[in-house]
Amino acid sequence: MAAAAASSLTPPPEVPMKLHVLNRNKLINALRDQLSASSRPHLGFVLLQGGEEQTRYCTDHAELFRQESYFAYLFGVQEPGFYGAIDIATGKSFLFAPRLPTEYAVWLGEIKPLSYFMERYMVDSAFYTDEIVTILHNQSQGVAQPLLFLLHGLNTDSNNYSKPAEFGGIEKFEIDRNTLHPILTECRVLKTNLELAVIQYANDISSEAHVEVMKNVKAGMKEYQLESIFLHHTYMYGGCRHCSYTCICATGGNSAVLHYGHAASPNDRAFEDGDMALLDMGAEFKFYGSDITCSFPVNGKFTNDQRLIYQAVLDAHDAVISSMKPGVSWVDMHKLAEKVILESLKKGGLLAGDVHDMMAERVGAVFMPHGLGHLLGIDTHDPGGYLKGAERPKEPGLKSLRTSRELLEGMVVTVEPGCYFIDALLVPAMKSPNTSKFFSSEINRFRGFGGVRIESDVYVNDHGCLNMTKCPREISEIEAVMAGGHWPIKKSIYFE
Amino acid sequence: MAAAAASSLTPPPEVPMKLHVLNRNKLINALRDQLSASSRPHLGFVLLQGGEEQTRYCTDHAELFRQESYFAYLFGVQEPGFYGAIDIATGKSFLFAPRLPTEYAVWLGEIKPLSYFMERYMVDSAFYTDEIVTILHNQSQGVAQPLLFLLHGLNTDSNNYSKPAEFGGIEKFEIDRNTLHPILTECRVLKTNLELAVIQYANDISSEAHVEVMKNVKAGMKEYQLESIFLHHTYMYGGCRHCSYTCICATGGNSAVLHYGHAASPNDRAFEDGDMALLDMGAEFKFYGSDITCSFPVNGKFTNDQRLIYQAVLDAHDAVISSMKPGVSWVDMHKLAEKVILESLKKGGLLAGDVHDMMAERVGAVFMPHGLGHLLGIDTHDPGGYLKGAERPKEPGLKSLRTSRELLEGMVVTVEPGCYFIDALLVPAMKSPNTSKFFSSEINRFRGFGGVRIESDVYVNDHGCLNMTKCPREISEIEAVMAGGHWPIKKSIYFE
Repeated sequence: MAAAAASSLTPPPEVPMKLHVLNRNKLINALRDQLSASSRPHLGFVLLQGGEEQTRYCTDHAELFRQESYFAYLFGVQEPGFYGAIDIATGKSFLFAPRLPTEYAVWLGEIKPLSYFMERYMVDSAFYTDEIVTILHNQSQGVAQPLLFLLHGLNTDSNNYSKPAEFGGIEKFEIDRNTLHPILTECRVLKTNLELAVIQYANDISSEAHVEVMKNVKAGMKEYQLESIFLHHTYMYGGCRHCSYTCICATGGNSAVLHYGHAASPNDRAFEDGDMALLDMGAEFKFYGSDITCSFPVNGKFTNDQRLIYQAVLDAHDAVISSMKPGVSWVDMHKLAEKVILESLKKGGLLAGDVHDMMAERVGAVFMPHGLGHLLGIDTHDPGGYLKGAERPKEPGLKSLRTSRELLEGMVVTVEPGCYFIDALLVPAMKSPNTSKFFSSEINRFRGFGGVRIESDVYVNDHGCLNMTKCPREISEIEAVMAGGHWPIKKSIYFE
Repeated sequence: MAAAAASSLTPPPEVPMKLHVLNRNKLINALRDQLSASSRPHLGFVLLQGGEEQTRYCTDHAELFRQESYFAYLFGVQEPGFYGAIDIATGKSFLFAPRLPTEYAVWLGEIKPLSYFMERYMVDSAFYTDEIVTILHNQSQGVAQPLLFLLHGLNTDSNNYSKPAEFGGIEKFEIDRNTLHPILTECRVLKTNLELAVIQYANDISSEAHVEVMKNVKAGMKEYQLESIFLHHTYMYGGCRHCSYTCICATGGNSAVLHYGHAASPNDRAFEDGDMALLDMGAEFKFYGSDITCSFPVNGKFTNDQRLIYQAVLDAHDAVISSMKPGVSWVDMHKLAEKVILESLKKGGLLAGDVHDMMAERVGAVFMPHGLGHLLGIDTHDPGGYLKGAERPKEPGLKSLRTSRELLEGMVVTVEPGCYFIDALLVPAMKSPNTSKFFSSEINRFRGFGGVRIESDVYVNDHGCLNMTKCPREISEIEAVMAGGHWPIKKSIYFE
């Protein structure tokens, strides 16, 4: 096994279930405020359906279950097949567990009593899923059709709608499908201190794993071996069974493919001396994710060209983090990153002309076609990026932003500027009558270079922000770590 | 990183795409035979739809794509969104690739030309999915409604039906949904030499990873750390990105939970000196799986009780493998394993009375409630276990068999006898008027012991069988390896 840094030998922390109790309280307070504002009574139940285990195609191959994110947020339940409810009048919480057949004990494990779920998940009561109708009716004595607030709304990243809870007997309730989604989504946008502590842990173990990768990279390896080192470190030493997303381990020209690493491009290139690597990998811990990108030369020494592009992106990364605070527009931060990168490319002789003119012609989007960053939490692309009615920007680059909001205290966002040499974008821009004038012939040297991305997870606090990611970022730091230097990651005290 | 055995530093082999060409030829020959037998013409097309990438609930979180198994068998395609066809008259093969939007090149990778897929997957021609109707009609000049053989049939493990291909314009074809499934399934039951070579590689790297785990186990670790060591070894050194199934890393009492390790029992126990471990883990390589279980004491030294149970299971495992050959009934093999285990338990003083009487009362199923083994291939539970019309046994234990067939040359089956102390089964059997007489009070010492399973993947050849799994099995071998002894795994030459 890897000779892991001493810090990684600390076992992963126990996450207090109170985290989800606070999430529920936050929701109920917000929901009551909203009901009051529209003169509606504080009556009815929030009802969510948890995820179900899925099998692969027609087989009995069970995919490893991961809880649906809204359900995870409110109830923290790791098992499939549950429902959960909250009584709006009293704030009392209910879990409904699947009634398991006797054979479950032989094949899948001890059948836990309801009291187990009640204690473990800190809810007020637990019943079986076939009791939902009876229990919720009993709780609403005298109401013929108790009101259920179900979750139905648009995910602005996928354009899919969340599926409202379904169960036998639902016709015995009055249904509200509109109120809950925006309120619950906004609760998720603003993190509590307990949530921040979990995201911090996911960042700490993932930062450590990125360093472990840097220390073990050698020309001639395959990209997936870097993925394997990362996954192993975060699981072995961090207890992270899931990643936030499929690892992107791109080297050489592949580093210009923004979402490399999926089944059709499965991190399977053998990389060579002189290549850059772009590694976008983040572990998930107890439902909460991290999303971190490191870029470096696989041989551990930056060439002048690699230095130029890397430093351009790092300057953009640092400029954004220095400017982030409540009230700042994320669109402005995106433009700031673009501007810093364009200025560096001009200084490096790749571009010529006025940077403001380049910005007006959206030349920044040629080099950074993706958005600067996104909300992060239980989902890698956490929901809430566009409030209802908000319009997406239409311009290249900006249209890829997963949020155009102003920053608020409590948001966690990724800051992930990048600079890529993508023929599909570069060639047309170099030919276009509006933009050809900006490109110097020097740029041809960078065709096939790939790209650089630097991504950190940043928490917006009351007066500025805090970078939660702890990877080596300066060129000198990266070169030192890759030459065998020590990079201690001081882990936080996550929970008192 | 692990100081891997020298053998593991050999890079994984290149699997020749000819494997899938041969699979297609085999299908077409079998299909033609069947058509001839029922005096039908050799006309029409086999048409299969490949798998699609899935997102998680309402989010844009893309699950790592794994091809649908029947499609993988015939075409070996790793990308989502394809269709494939074979012309029954000519044997010619067609792939239909999704037409990707220009933006794909920026986000997901180079848009490959059709010629790339034609060459890579060794098909006769490649087109786009929106050309299925035109191309297949052109190939069938003069036929108003060409005949399509679609895949529709029952998976006898999941009780789900495979989903026949769907596409716009399907009404322009005549459809046969009944003929293909049993023929294609039977092709998958009997492995070619190329398929065997891939399964052998999956076995070799997984056997090596099991040994790596044995060498690194220490009391006080968490079960998931063993999973992490296994996954890392098979990915880092074997290029296996997928496992055949979720790892079962059960220690202590958990080893009596047959399918431990899923999300509700996530390998999260810290194990202690004196515990047994039961590790059921197998890597998948280029679609083909392995399925291997090792059981051992976590401190590396068997106690007398552990020795008794382990040896009982090993004797059953070895007796079955010694008896396997074409024509042998799998039900008989299951009973043989039961008999060997019951005899050992009797000899050890846990049971008393006549073993034949025990068998008649199905006492074997108290200790081994699962089936002896199953077909293995592209699916862990490979299809074809029950031929159409075949009835499942009804008796305890036997009813869990995933196949009741006679062995045929070319089958790969798992041999996985086990002996578990499961209160949910043991307590009723100890109380039942029919079976209480068989149980000695000695057995109470084993309540909470957990269980032992030993599982190998076995290929049935023309005169007997071959064990493809290369783990230490004898008690002395396990103790030697866990004490630091060398365990060389001689890898095969997989492909000339």
